This record gives sequence, C-alpha cells and structure tokens, in this order.
Amino acid sequence: MALAEKILEGDIRAAARLMRDIDDGFKSALDELKILYPHTGNAFIIGITGPPGAGKSTLVDQLTAVYRKQGKRVGIVAVDPTSPFTGGAILGDRIRMNRHADDAGVFIRSLATRGHLGGLSRSTMDVANVMDAMGMDIVIIETVGVGQDEVDIVRMAHSTIVVMVPGLGDDIQAIKAGILEIGDLFVVNKADREGADRTVRELATMLEMNQYKKGAWLPKVLRTEAHCNRGIEELVAEIEAHRSHLYQSGEIREFLQEKNARVFMDLLKERLFTEVFQHLHVNGRYRAILEGMAARREDPYSAVEKILAERFKGGD
Amino acid sequence: MALAEKILEGDIRAAARLMRDIDDGFKSALDELKILYPHTGNAFIIGITGPPGAGKSTLVDQLTAVYRKQGKRVGIVAVDPTSPFTGGAILGDRIRMNRHADDAGVFIRSLATRGHLGGLSRSTMDVANVMDAMGMDIVIIETVGVGQDEVDIVRMAHSTIVVMVPGLGDDIQAIKAGILEIGDLFVVNKADREGADRTVRELATMLEMNQYKKGAWLPKVLRTEAHCNRGIEELVAEIEAHRSHLYQSGEIREFLQEKNARVFMDLLKERLFTEVFQHLHVNGRYRAILEGMAARREDPYSAVEKILAERFKGGD
Repeated sequence: MALAEKILEGDIRAAARLMRDIDDGFKSALDELKILYPHTGNAFIIGITGPPGAGKSTLVDQLTAVYRKQGKRVGIVAVDPTSPFTGGAILGDRIRMNRHADDAGVFIRSLATRGHLGGLSRSTMDVANVMDAMGMDIVIIETVGVGQDEVDIVRMAHSTIVVMVPGLGDDIQAIKAGILEIGDLFVVNKADREGADRTVRELATMLEMNQYKKGAWLPKVLRTEAHCNRGIEELVAEIEAHRSHLYQSGEIREFLQEKNARVFMDLLKERLFTEVFQHLHVNGRYRAILEGMAARREDPYSAVEKILAERFKGGD
Repeated sequence: MALAEKILEGDIRAAARLMRDIDDGFKSALDELKILYPHTGNAFIIGITGPPGAGKSTLVDQLTAVYRKQGKRVGIVAVDPTSPFTGGAILGDRIRMNRHADDAGVFIRSLATRGHLGGLSRSTMDVANVMDAMGMDIVIIETVGVGQDEVDIVRMAHSTIVVMVPGLGDDIQAIKAGILEIGDLFVVNKADREGADRTVRELATMLEMNQYKKGAWLPKVLRTEAHCNRGIEELVAEIEAHRSHLYQSGEIREFLQEKNARVFMDLLKERLFTEVFQHLHVNGRYRAILEGMAARREDPYSAVEKILAERFKGGD
C-alpha cells in the first residue's frame, strides 16, 4: 500500500516517513502528495514568525494547549532556515522536550531544510499538506528568523502572527519595516519586561501609518506572557476573529488563489531544473560548461540559452 | 553602442543603468552580461554579513577608506533581503550619506531585490560582475541579516567576514550556529562595549570545536571599533592573509569551481522557469491549473508533470 493510503487511514508512522522523504527532497514523495491532495484544504493554517529569542516556541506550546482543550487536533511544523549547516538540531532537541510530544492529537515535525531545492516554502507546504490530509484541524507553522524565507513561508498561512519582545532596541526597526506587511496579528511577548508599553505603542503607530482598504482586516497588537500563560486565550480569540473576517469578507478566495499560484510556481521551478540538470550532469555537459566558465571561454548566460534552445519544444 | 561596451570604456552612467536593469530583472541585461563576462574574474570579492545593528555599514566605510589609500578602486554592493516591501529605501538613504559617494574610485550600488526571481544571490553576482568588469580591484558585498539568502550571497565572496556585536545576548546563539561555517574572519565590532571579551571568547570557543583539515585556513576573531576607526588596518591585513592562503594553498580552484557551479545553476533555474511560465500564462493554461487546484480537481504535482512531458525534448 502507498504511504499516502496508510496516512489517510490514520497511520502516524507513515506520515512521519513521508515528511522525512519530503524534507530529504525524495522525488517519490511527489506521488504520495498527489494522492493526498484531494484530501487537503480543511486545516486552518497559522504562521508564527519573529526574531530568535522572542519566545515563539513557548507561545506555540500554549496555543496548542488551548486548541487541544477545544478538542482540535494540532499539527506543528517548525522550520529553521537560519541553520543550513546544523541540520536543525536545535529545533529537534527542543521538540523532544515539548509537553505535547506524547499527545496523539498533536503531531510535531521539524524541517531541517536539507532538501530545500525548490524553496523551503515548498517543502513546508508539502508537510503542512500531509498534516492537513491527516485530519489536523489546526496546523501551526513556526519559523525562526525574519528573512525572505520566513516571509515566503508565513505567506502560506491563513493567519500570520508576528511575535516581538520588548527591549530588542532600535536595531529591530529594520526588521519591523519588512514584516509589518505580513502580520495579521502582532504579539508583544514577554510583556512583563521593561519597555513593553513602548514596543506596543511603536508597533501600533507603525501600523496606523499603513493604508487599509475599506472593510480590510486591521492588524491588532496583543500582549502575551507565554511562559505563564497570560494573554493566550485572547490571542486565540483574535485568531478566530481573523478567520471569520477572511471568510465573511470573501478575502479567502483571493488568498487561496495567490497561495495556489505560489505553490504551483515553486513546484514548476524545482521540477524543470531537476529534469534538465540531471541530463546535463549525466552526459558531461555540465562539467564542460564549468570548465569553459573557469577559463572565461564560455559565459553562463550563453550556455543556458543554448540548453533552452535544444531542449524545449515550441509552446503554443 | 551596447551598454556593456560603454562600461568597458569606463562609462559610469552606463554601469549604473545596467545594474538597475539587473535589479529590475530585465532580460536584456543578460546580453550585456555576456559581453562583460570575459572581462571579469579580476576583482577580489569580500562578503560582509551579520545581524542588523552590528555596524556593518560603518565597517564597510572604513574598509573602503583603507583600500582607497592603497590606490585601489572599490565597488560596494549593499543587499537588503529583509525588506521585500520597503524596496531597500533604508539602504538607499544610508548610501547617499556615505562619505565616499563623490569619490570616482568608489562605486556604490544598493540592491532593492525587486527583480529577485532566480535568487537574490544571482542578481548580486551579476552586479558584482559589472563592477569587476569596470575594473574595481575590490568588490564588497554587504548584506543585512543572517538568513539563507545572506548565506547564499556571501558564499560567492572570496573572503567572508561575519560581524557581531557584544551584548546581543543568548538570543544570538541560534544565529551564530548557522553562520559559524561561512566566516573566514569574525569581527566583534563595537568592541568598547560591555561584554566584548565574552563575545570574543564565545566565538573563539565555538570555532575551536570545529574540525579543520590539515593546512586549512583557521578563521580568526578580531575586534574593531569601526566608528572610531580602531582595528580596521588589522582587519585589512587579515583579509590579505586569507587571500594569500586561498592562492598559495590552491583552495582558490575549488572555490571558483563551486561558485561557477552555483552561478550556472541559479541562472538555469531562472531561465527555465521564465521560458515555460510565459507560455502557460499566455495560453490560459496557468489559469486553468489554478482553477483546478482551487476545486481540488487537479493537483499541482500532476499538472507540472504533464507540462514537463509536453514541453521537453528527450535529452541525450
């Protein structure tokens, strides 16, 4: 039986296996994902991002507890694009310590970004799709860091939560500028720390400067103290409010269209490259091109043009 | 006359124009780059990365001053991948204030990541190639942030400098873990601040845990106070030591081979995608696929496979 069929029957180990295959970039995973695809689209996906040290993991842990009390099944994908070399060991360790690790209603998977050809956002979405097909009601995608990778990833979520902490100082301004546009909710965590009021005020001011269309969702700034479970119920209520807004306003259609477009394009990019590159590699052409480049005898721009001319049939 | 020919004759405005075209992702830029390619490979490229607020810009400014005193021409590429939405405005403002802005021996360009299809590292390298062909002796690539994008970019440099500051606290550990492997030199900037000794010691300890091959370059940890020009001469001397090591050990061959491979593959990915996607878009197929995905009638994995089967000639 295919892994996908086992997964649809509730086999947890088959799911873990497929996610590992996805992370490793195995081509066979694509066939499994084909089978799962019609069973996806039911989970609500929450993206959580913010700088290292903002307490995102504790927040995810507390959110999970609330959703579990509501009887919902929760999938967690922890993505660590800042550690291309350590293979996500830090996340892995942390996850093993998670108090939900033994709860059958919670499925946790860390992505080590090993097979990240085609974009980390793609493998993250593939893993989220597996969780979706497994019947998880909520899928939480947590990223470490605030770069382009993280932006790409959290854009795939229905609701995006940006987590900040007081006292990171002016240095964080540059980061804020980049992620203000992607947050549906802003959380100032560790809100008992000095400077929390100021951080909340600054965020609110920056958000007020944004232009919103009539009827658009207005991002809110919340306070939490995740380590002692303060503000979590309020956060869950706001996530619910955002979800309602998405569906009642009809914005969900536009969101899904953009998301599907991105998923398709990422996949197309990856498969095109793999297809062409394998041939070049096998027939020795690749080595010849590199030698030509080293001697400045051949430029990469012309080499690629030649390959395109040879390999493509005209499109209609 | 082509832009490239004007650039080879020393036309600064033509160079600025081509770099803008590269940043905007114009296809015409590829033809210019073809002409410039045989004239590249002479500049020594220095990559500088580190968290926001580490004082990288001031450091670049001081490095530039030293190289100018040596009579070298310096190109600076400032890349800001953390701000996909602000369009690099922060960098742009800063660059205009740079004291070297009126020096004809210094050429500064910020990359706003607008046309970043095919990878920001590719457009960065294209811009560095233009500067190389212009006859810049040193090209400094400065990135903001420490994510995968930045890692990809600084890997293209002959020497990579990772800039840290004291007092960012334990939160920075996760970042350190990821970038330890890419640094040829580590700089603790703002070394007059409290905690500098500790940061230097921690970095040194972490580096000591790495396994180095016999004869390999051992990354060093330096202190600078860029704002008052302390430690800069020493840093330039260490960069020179690393450059000598690269050539004397023969490691330069391996480095260039890997770099050329990455340049070629990034370009191949981008051009393949552009070629296929334009057709899909024009003939309505793209819309049909998205509609199929929305209805869960078609999965993206099968859609991409069909396209590959139709458009590709068999390779040999």
